[in-house]
Amino acid sequence: MNNFEYCNPVRVVFGKGTISRISDLIPKDAKVLVVYGGGSIKKNGVYDQVKTALKNFNVVEFGGVEPNPQYSTLMNAVKIVKEENITFILSVGGGSTLDGSKFIAAAAKYEGSDPWDILEKGAEVKDAVPLADVITLPATGSEMNCLAVISKKETMEKLAFGSPFVFPKFSIIDPSVTFTLPLRQVANGIADTFVHVIEQYVTHSVNSPLQDRQAEAILLALLDEAPKVFAMPNDYEVRANLFWMATQALNGWLNVGVAQCWATHNIGHEITARTGVDHGRSLALVLPGVWRHQRKEKGERIVQLGRRVFKLDEPNFEKAIDATIAATVKFFQSLGINATKAEYGVTDEVIKAIAELVDSRGVKFGDRGNIGGKEIVEILNLCD
Amino acid sequence: MNNFEYCNPVRVVFGKGTISRISDLIPKDAKVLVVYGGGSIKKNGVYDQVKTALKNFNVVEFGGVEPNPQYSTLMNAVKIVKEENITFILSVGGGSTLDGSKFIAAAAKYEGSDPWDILEKGAEVKDAVPLADVITLPATGSEMNCLAVISKKETMEKLAFGSPFVFPKFSIIDPSVTFTLPLRQVANGIADTFVHVIEQYVTHSVNSPLQDRQAEAILLALLDEAPKVFAMPNDYEVRANLFWMATQALNGWLNVGVAQCWATHNIGHEITARTGVDHGRSLALVLPGVWRHQRKEKGERIVQLGRRVFKLDEPNFEKAIDATIAATVKFFQSLGINATKAEYGVTDEVIKAIAELVDSRGVKFGDRGNIGGKEIVEILNLCD
Repeated sequence: MNNFEYCNPVRVVFGKGTISRISDLIPKDAKVLVVYGGGSIKKNGVYDQVKTALKNFNVVEFGGVEPNPQYSTLMNAVKIVKEENITFILSVGGGSTLDGSKFIAAAAKYEGSDPWDILEKGAEVKDAVPLADVITLPATGSEMNCLAVISKKETMEKLAFGSPFVFPKFSIIDPSVTFTLPLRQVANGIADTFVHVIEQYVTHSVNSPLQDRQAEAILLALLDEAPKVFAMPNDYEVRANLFWMATQALNGWLNVGVAQCWATHNIGHEITARTGVDHGRSLALVLPGVWRHQRKEKGERIVQLGRRVFKLDEPNFEKAIDATIAATVKFFQSLGINATKAEYGVTDEVIKAIAELVDSRGVKFGDRGNIGGKEIVEILNLCD
Repeated sequence: MNNFEYCNPVRVVFGKGTISRISDLIPKDAKVLVVYGGGSIKKNGVYDQVKTALKNFNVVEFGGVEPNPQYSTLMNAVKIVKEENITFILSVGGGSTLDGSKFIAAAAKYEGSDPWDILEKGAEVKDAVPLADVITLPATGSEMNCLAVISKKETMEKLAFGSPFVFPKFSIIDPSVTFTLPLRQVANGIADTFVHVIEQYVTHSVNSPLQDRQAEAILLALLDEAPKVFAMPNDYEVRANLFWMATQALNGWLNVGVAQCWATHNIGHEITARTGVDHGRSLALVLPGVWRHQRKEKGERIVQLGRRVFKLDEPNFEKAIDATIAATVKFFQSLGINATKAEYGVTDEVIKAIAELVDSRGVKFGDRGNIGGKEIVEILNLCD
């Protein structure tokens, strides 16, 4: 195990009827910016619950944060934060709304000339407006981490940043708000949860038996529970269990002291930025390609995953790798995700453009930092 | 899953050579009380590393906190905190020293007439002196929780309290300091880790597939790694893995939204208070008795534990319970712990006294709150 530091101060409030806790947890004298997305919260009762809880607070609203939150939209919110002297940001929606809110919180206090530098150049975030959230979609795990992914459609970029200043002060997770989600989104969220775990587990080993078992714990539970949400979409317990798995998959507990990959996410972001395909679906497309390309580097962990999670019993090492990849693809298909390049418009042209952009940034992906433009082309050619 | 709230703000600093981080993490103008135990830290190099890191700080020392920290000793430290205007407490030692430090921190700010009320009457802790620790023994998990167990030998009591005010601000976990521990203590710590998980897992089910798997993850990893520390006592990776398991077993992640038992600990504390037997050993003695007594209430989880962790393949339910209990006893024995009432001086007289004291307090133990004096006698009679 590598040396590490870990600190996660988020207060998680989980369960039925918990949205009302907002009124206890936001400072009484705060001026609150409520940030939301397309308006689904006005159909599923969440907006009304939030309004009721905030009835004694000074509130300004900002709607319209996109599923892949756009820099330009968020900068409009930053303007309002400054003009209205907002002292607290409450995100109400899914991970996109929360990621967007994290960026608004950081950009509003950023002293440099261009807040996009936070994403493109890794410029340090030294302060942020305090924020919290009511999270309504189990997928990103954003509710219990300090990361955010922001897009700029003008340049087809989708980049990530992180800072302890953007840990939510609290996150309200009421699984009963997920009943109205389209099952397509639920499926995307399950795929995102699965791949989050993979990025922190199917890497080169650093002697981490506990972290291995903890990653496998989430995957084993996910494989058991995922089919239930399609069979029993109105079962609260299933929704609660799936939500907690999504939160746990990216709150930092899995990756202390171990290597992390994130190549699948990095490449998936580029695909979504160009084709608009759902984030979870982009991951289902790319992951098998990454594994096929990196069978030597990742083979040991892929085989362990196959044996311990998919309960495969294949003694031949190479065949075990193939069997695990096949089992993973089958899992995605069981969610209704049939990920192929043709399906998602990932043409040779798109592949070439992604490779060129990544090389122009001078970055390398993967837990060994050895995936550049050339390797991305190879990986995507190995995808279905 | 039940509704829950979870917030754990401890900063964990883990790994080789991390003790020096103290000098960055304690406020520069603090007046620091360094609390320690019997002095083993002066033999294993920890004391010297701490002194070096604190060379520019205003420091007062308080040694002598016992393995079962005694109320009277701790109240001497409280006196010093007040007289010397201590603003920060640094515990340097094992879980006993840290538990003692948590109590000192709370008692020093307690406004009631008798700080023992915090333990005996559950009096609310409304403030505490900030504290942190260098933890040197993997066992209690105290480094990442807000709980403490304090003893009063005059009345043979061993009681627990908890408060968010006594979360350590940071915990330094350098596994290399554990090489000098007697293997008896290492074994005790492994037993404590195992039973901590059990108390949060072998309970009545509330539909918690993820928490189940997470508990099993720690147990599976523990079963794999424990033998290695006896075979390879100088291997850093083994020590690191065992330490992280101990920390994770009681940092709250396992028990969100689920039932918890703690009967084994409650009864074990009473035994230690009377006989002086090591905490971990008291648990190894009591646990089989609790399971034998509660086979109906806990049978389902005991069988699941047997199947998923001990890999037992016994189709008959009752036999599977017995096989799991036997496998657990065998695990304790593999640590050199042969726990019997005769071995630990748990006579009929001791059993009777414990039952009477528990009844006089009017408390009941267990996840169903149905274990009183009568049941304690039955349980202890079922122990080996």
